[in-house]
Amino acid sequence: MRIQANSNLLFIGDSITDCGRVRPVGEANPWNWGEVGSGYVRDVAAILGAAYPERAIRVRNVGSSGNTVRDLASRWKPDVTDLAPDWLSIMIGINDVWRQFDSPLAPERAVPLAEYSETLWSLCHRTRPKLKGLVLMTPFMIEANPDDPMRARMDEYGAAVKEISEEFEAVFVDTQAAFNALLQHHHPASIAWDRIHPGPVGHMTIARAFLRGIEAL
Amino acid sequence: MRIQANSNLLFIGDSITDCGRVRPVGEANPWNWGEVGSGYVRDVAAILGAAYPERAIRVRNVGSSGNTVRDLASRWKPDVTDLAPDWLSIMIGINDVWRQFDSPLAPERAVPLAEYSETLWSLCHRTRPKLKGLVLMTPFMIEANPDDPMRARMDEYGAAVKEISEEFEAVFVDTQAAFNALLQHHHPASIAWDRIHPGPVGHMTIARAFLRGIEAL
Amino acid sequence: MRIQANSNLLFIGDSITDCGRVRPVGEANPWNWGEVGSGYVRDVAAILGAAYPERAIRVRNVGSSGNTVRDLASRWKPDVTDLAPDWLSIMIGINDVWRQFDSPLAPERAVPLAEYSETLWSLCHRTRPKLKGLVLMTPFMIEANPDDPMRARMDEYGAAVKEISEEFEAVFVDTQAAFNALLQHHHPASIAWDRIHPGPVGHMTIARAFLRGIEAL
Amino acid sequence: MRIQANSNLLFIGDSITDCGRVRPVGEANPWNWGEVGSGYVRDVAAILGAAYPERAIRVRNVGSSGNTVRDLASRWKPDVTDLAPDWLSIMIGINDVWRQFDSPLAPERAVPLAEYSETLWSLCHRTRPKLKGLVLMTPFMIEANPDDPMRARMDEYGAAVKEISEEFEAVFVDTQAAFNALLQHHHPASIAWDRIHPGPVGHMTIARAFLRGIEAL
Amino acid sequence: MRIQANSNLLFIGDSITDCGRVRPVGEANPWNWGEVGSGYVRDVAAILGAAYPERAIRVRNVGSSGNTVRDLASRWKPDVTDLAPDWLSIMIGINDVWRQFDSPLAPERAVPLAEYSETLWSLCHRTRPKLKGLVLMTPFMIEANPDDPMRARMDEYGAAVKEISEEFEAVFVDTQAAFNALLQHHHPASIAWDRIHPGPVGHMTIARAFLRGIEAL
Amino acid sequence: MRIQANSNLLFIGDSITDCGRVRPVGEANPWNWGEVGSGYVRDVAAILGAAYPERAIRVRNVGSSGNTVRDLASRWKPDVTDLAPDWLSIMIGINDVWRQFDSPLAPERAVPLAEYSETLWSLCHRTRPKLKGLVLMTPFMIEANPDDPMRARMDEYGAAVKEISEEFEAVFVDTQAAFNALLQHHHPASIAWDRIHPGPVGHMTIARAFLRGIEAL
Amino acid sequence: MRIQANSNLLFIGDSITDCGRVRPVGEANPWNWGEVGSGYVRDVAAILGAAYPERAIRVRNVGSSGNTVRDLASRWKPDVTDLAPDWLSIMIGINDVWRQFDSPLAPERAVPLAEYSETLWSLCHRTRPKLKGLVLMTPFMIEANPDDPMRARMDEYGAAVKEISEEFEAVFVDTQAAFNALLQHHHPASIAWDRIHPGPVGHMTIARAFLRGIEAL
Amino acid sequence: MRIQANSNLLFIGDSITDCGRVRPVGEANPWNWGEVGSGYVRDVAAILGAAYPERAIRVRNVGSSGNTVRDLASRWKPDVTDLAPDWLSIMIGINDVWRQFDSPLAPERAVPLAEYSETLWSLCHRTRPKLKGLVLMTPFMIEANPDDPMRARMDEYGAAVKEISEEFEAVFVDTQAAFNALLQHHHPASIAWDRIHPGPVGHMTIARAFLRGIEAL
Repeated sequence: MRIQANSNLLFIGDSITDCGRVRPVGEANPWNWGEVGSGYVRDVAAILGAAYPERAIRVRNVGSSGNTVRDLASRWKPDVTDLAPDWLSIMIGINDVWRQFDSPLAPERAVPLAEYSETLWSLCHRTRPKLKGLVLMTPFMIEANPDDPMRARMDEYGAAVKEISEEFEAVFVDTQAAFNALLQHHHPASIAWDRIHPGPVGHMTIARAFLRGIEAL
Repeated sequence: MRIQANSNLLFIGDSITDCGRVRPVGEANPWNWGEVGSGYVRDVAAILGAAYPERAIRVRNVGSSGNTVRDLASRWKPDVTDLAPDWLSIMIGINDVWRQFDSPLAPERAVPLAEYSETLWSLCHRTRPKLKGLVLMTPFMIEANPDDPMRARMDEYGAAVKEISEEFEAVFVDTQAAFNALLQHHHPASIAWDRIHPGPVGHMTIARAFLRGIEAL
Repeated sequence: MRIQANSNLLFIGDSITDCGRVRPVGEANPWNWGEVGSGYVRDVAAILGAAYPERAIRVRNVGSSGNTVRDLASRWKPDVTDLAPDWLSIMIGINDVWRQFDSPLAPERAVPLAEYSETLWSLCHRTRPKLKGLVLMTPFMIEANPDDPMRARMDEYGAAVKEISEEFEAVFVDTQAAFNALLQHHHPASIAWDRIHPGPVGHMTIARAFLRGIEAL
Repeated sequence: MRIQANSNLLFIGDSITDCGRVRPVGEANPWNWGEVGSGYVRDVAAILGAAYPERAIRVRNVGSSGNTVRDLASRWKPDVTDLAPDWLSIMIGINDVWRQFDSPLAPERAVPLAEYSETLWSLCHRTRPKLKGLVLMTPFMIEANPDDPMRARMDEYGAAVKEISEEFEAVFVDTQAAFNALLQHHHPASIAWDRIHPGPVGHMTIARAFLRGIEAL
Repeated sequence: MRIQANSNLLFIGDSITDCGRVRPVGEANPWNWGEVGSGYVRDVAAILGAAYPERAIRVRNVGSSGNTVRDLASRWKPDVTDLAPDWLSIMIGINDVWRQFDSPLAPERAVPLAEYSETLWSLCHRTRPKLKGLVLMTPFMIEANPDDPMRARMDEYGAAVKEISEEFEAVFVDTQAAFNALLQHHHPASIAWDRIHPGPVGHMTIARAFLRGIEAL
Repeated sequence: MRIQANSNLLFIGDSITDCGRVRPVGEANPWNWGEVGSGYVRDVAAILGAAYPERAIRVRNVGSSGNTVRDLASRWKPDVTDLAPDWLSIMIGINDVWRQFDSPLAPERAVPLAEYSETLWSLCHRTRPKLKGLVLMTPFMIEANPDDPMRARMDEYGAAVKEISEEFEAVFVDTQAAFNALLQHHHPASIAWDRIHPGPVGHMTIARAFLRGIEAL
Repeated sequence: MRIQANSNLLFIGDSITDCGRVRPVGEANPWNWGEVGSGYVRDVAAILGAAYPERAIRVRNVGSSGNTVRDLASRWKPDVTDLAPDWLSIMIGINDVWRQFDSPLAPERAVPLAEYSETLWSLCHRTRPKLKGLVLMTPFMIEANPDDPMRARMDEYGAAVKEISEEFEAVFVDTQAAFNALLQHHHPASIAWDRIHPGPVGHMTIARAFLRGIEAL
Repeated sequence: MRIQANSNLLFIGDSITDCGRVRPVGEANPWNWGEVGSGYVRDVAAILGAAYPERAIRVRNVGSSGNTVRDLASRWKPDVTDLAPDWLSIMIGINDVWRQFDSPLAPERAVPLAEYSETLWSLCHRTRPKLKGLVLMTPFMIEANPDDPMRARMDEYGAAVKEISEEFEAVFVDTQAAFNALLQHHHPASIAWDRIHPGPVGHMTIARAFLRGIEAL
């Protein structure tokens, strides 16, 4: 288990991370429900609390639905720098890609690959020195067919995350790979209505990929 | 992992099991949220789905808030027998004890130990032969002081569960012991506002005790 | 235009037909909004009213969300026979197939192909003699990849509809084909969040396929 | 079909255009419902999307309930100029006239003909050079009797629209004429409760008049 | 003033009479608001209470929105006979006519003139002997043009009311005539959005016609 | 009838005047309900509209619940002066007195007689020259016993209104006298639950006193 | 203090007793709020619990808003007899009188004195033998003037309660006297908006009169 | 009884004091319910009003849920100084301690003992000279076991209150002692779900301790 006792761990991302977390900062309290939302962050916090109570890890969540990496950059100071995390986990890129496919007539809503990579790189560059640990999670699409144009594009963004991970010695969490394994037993229709927002099994899949990344499973 | 592929697993109990599950029967769908409620049944279903997708275990929940073992007996046919579970998990007794302490003036609301044991025994006797597996979970109180009168009484009910477990070759899950371990690192105030209804860490603690019981952790 | 002046036209089906129509019978009034719901039935009624005002065609809707062909059979007398339509349009089968993929653990919720074909055949057999005209519309999946297992299964159900159409001299409306044409210009993500429930463009696509079928476009 | 591929088309007007569109700008997404409201703009967007998917026309709506031409002038920069439409469609004047008849004691709420014409002319003058195409739709009253004083007044405003249309080489859409045709088969009571706000048949009538204007029907 | 002290006066009719009155029987209490609804019955009750407090007249309201004379006949025993009024006031017929014009495709919703006259005659015949006084009010349309087909039809129903009035020595209240007078100063648009349901001025107009009929103004 | 054709008439006061009127200014439209609230202002507007349609009198309402004369003074410019009424009607003082009796411990909430008289005098002084007509209505208590301390105090405030009326040649409306007459036939319990806020009969009593004052009854 | 340890004490009455208690039976739990409503029963239960914890008195409430003694008689078996109280407290009569004054036109809603006395006598006669103690509380009106007709009538009903009290050796609680004492320092307007339903001070006044009656103050 | 006639008495504190009081200042009106909330302040106000009506004591409440002494200091001027109380009652410290136990990972939310004592001392120092009387109430935990770590810590904060009380000649109210007495007859589960927020019996226990402190019981 790589996260040190008494560390504080911050999650940032889009709706997958948000899941209804409290504003301005969602914080996991053992006796409280909605504060970190109902997604993978809740699962991670619950498992860390139940399995490693002696570590006393503080978990906070600043994910925001609909965000792209461009939105992350615009709120980085209040939502990341000012919270001074020991460990930071970023999962971003789904909306950067999705808007290219669900809103083709409104190109200003999407973020092209080059801008995505540069922005994410720059955020890591700015923050990595102050962290004990950084986790980078790929965006994903719950689609079994690797030739689907949106899945293929998502994989390119995931590859960019991998590259940046290596440069910054981050823990790399391949959520797409985790879903690919799950899709060998399930049709996408049984995991997520829209192939993006999973139910509890999908969120637990993400949580377990994260926990495996920090060697807590 | 003791639950066979393609089994259906049914949970019955009180508010700890219920947690807002859908009526008349809560059923875990991988892509769905509220159906089995927000408690330990959800955690168990999510982890079984994420870690054992190839087993295809169907999870259903008929817990009902406020129930005592007397209520379970009164709805056993429609809610257990008619659903024909392969595996059945029962956690009951918290309200049987709690009403003795929070409603001392209304003794008809509580269930004394003898009636509790006999009723639970009789339900197991009636149903065990049709099951592939039975899980019996103790009731619990999130109270560190074993001399607290309500905690002491709860322990007696837990002991009854243990005895019945042995007679019926059930998987015995000692949730009180699981909470006792957690209480070595946390004051009860950080786990549950009322020392009964825990937040996500407490439910995950129950879920992990269950999973350990069925050898899935 | 094949529907005669002063005819009454009845639509039955699942959520695609329902779209929030009024209970017990949704009826299109020119000055009224929600009565026939917000889907393709509304589009058909609006276009018939605007383009053929002199025909005075009465449009009613008894679609019900979540229905399979089994549900249609169970409510056929009050919802079809008793309303004595001149023309009847049926679109059913999406849930019959979908439940096989999104709820694999609850097989009782789905309808296998044989039962589907026999039930639909029997409903047509019972009602065709009383009708001036019958329209059968295929179920569909907004999925471009014909090898997707659910799309492939849906196509088999569509083929059954085609066969029954021919036997009963029904107007056959191939909604899957209509969506296939649309998918040459759009990724599914831009038509329907869940690849089943389209927005206005998808419903207009269905409406236009229907109107072409009755030679009104 | 006169609107070029990849154009963006903007609608402005009063409640007939608004119909509950999203703020600050309603935008038609193929998979989305309420964004452009539930009126003729939705019908136009749905039909363009279903019939001309290869044109990829972006449809936006900035209609606002209760507006007169005076309100349009006051929000022209943010709501029209800044959105830089390729094609612009304006339908205004109903409230300019209606207030003269339903609020005779509050004359400041209505807009007299001279002010109406001058304002509309000036808006066209200011914007026409930047547009690929302009559509001007008459205001209307769903009243069959041309001698009704409010219908007669509305016709004068419609005549002003026609004149301005010619000067600016706009597509002229005579919605009053479209309703007059419909009124040959329907009493006004069956089209609109208040002789102004039609139901789906009336909105489709407007949409078809628009589509005929741009040669898309 | 023709209504005797300590009489009880009952109003029956459609939405014009109903106006949100309480179920099962609306009753005017001097200190209470909604009980007899917000329409002309409230105005009559308020004026009788303020101008003739010494008469102590009890006012009750059993009007029901959407009713035709057919509906009145079906609820005559519980809603009229059982309440044993001294004076009874009936205003019915608007929906009997309106449905012919707003729902031409659903002829079963309207009531033709012959059935209307016979039913109203038969209700009066059955009840007149038990009454101290009967008031018959015409249905009306807030339409200035007597050649409008719906207004012309409404006038025929009003003529039937007049004839029945004479046969049964009822107080005849010509609400259409009262609105005709008002329409010399107002366009219909300023009295009622739908030419049927007036605002406070229109309801006061009906109330004053009623009061003039009973010689209380 | 003293109010001239085409005049605009403004009402200001407390909750008796307010009665839920629209903000910022309630305005009576013949076809509209809630705009001037549900109290005596509505009754006056409805009767003026029904009985004097040719006068075309515009009625507006800026009464505000809970107001004392102190509150009126603080909002006089926007709510009276800026609206430039031809006729102005003021009814104030109930709360000035009531707070002395229902909140004896919070004396800052009430307005003593001297301050009341001076403030009301000063408002009249400031505005009378710009008016065609001024109406001053007394505050009232629906209490039959003139020795009740609150009723006695209210009478003193009413006397002050009378005096000011005479000085400014205002129409003086003695609402207390109107209620006294009503109380000869009714116990206060049948007019107003709290002896202040009457139901429809009480509001019509106020309205008739007003109408008598302007010679319209 | 006259109520014995471990007794159960039941309150029945009208809205003064009800005050929003839970259905079907309101029961005071020390940790619970709304169960016995927010009125004098709550105050009694709270003071008995705080001042006599060792007595363990169970307090239940079956008061129902709007009830007269006639309503009590009609629900006596389920609401009193079946609950088998040790001590019973009855406060009824306010509505029996009030309806005579607030609804003079609907005499069937009130209960005349003779019927009131006989019914109350008969309920006491039927139940007294099974009770350890009976408390009879007078109805009251928060009106200082004993000549007010409704106050005078209420006093007659209170006198009847006194007489019945003596016959059945009940504890007699004179709530009117308690309010009379309070009215020497307060105008009714500061105790209850409608001279019937008091706020917290009035309810505490009733509670203290009750506690004095059972010698607990 | 130590509080002088016509004094105004102000309560400040946390959720125990707040209990839903009105903003910005809760004020007890005899005829009003929610204004001072539903807790001990309401009980004190009701008993003072019912037992000492001639003293005319004004009771106000500025308690705010979740507050620590740090929050009190930050709002002292508007909420205490500006209201110029004659008597002031402070109960603070529960959250200062509780956050140490329920939120151990967020230490910034709690207030350590030294800061607590100094801040409370300084508030008293600043305000005592302007007061006729000061009441200091201890914070409490409804926990019978004095060795419970949170109860033990709460006792230390209570000891600090006692010390400050003596220095400033305040009335010292030992709420913990009052609860300890109650706990000899009740398990905490019957007084408060979370061992902090009591029901009516617990609030009455606090109110009686307060009243005993001011010699009013």
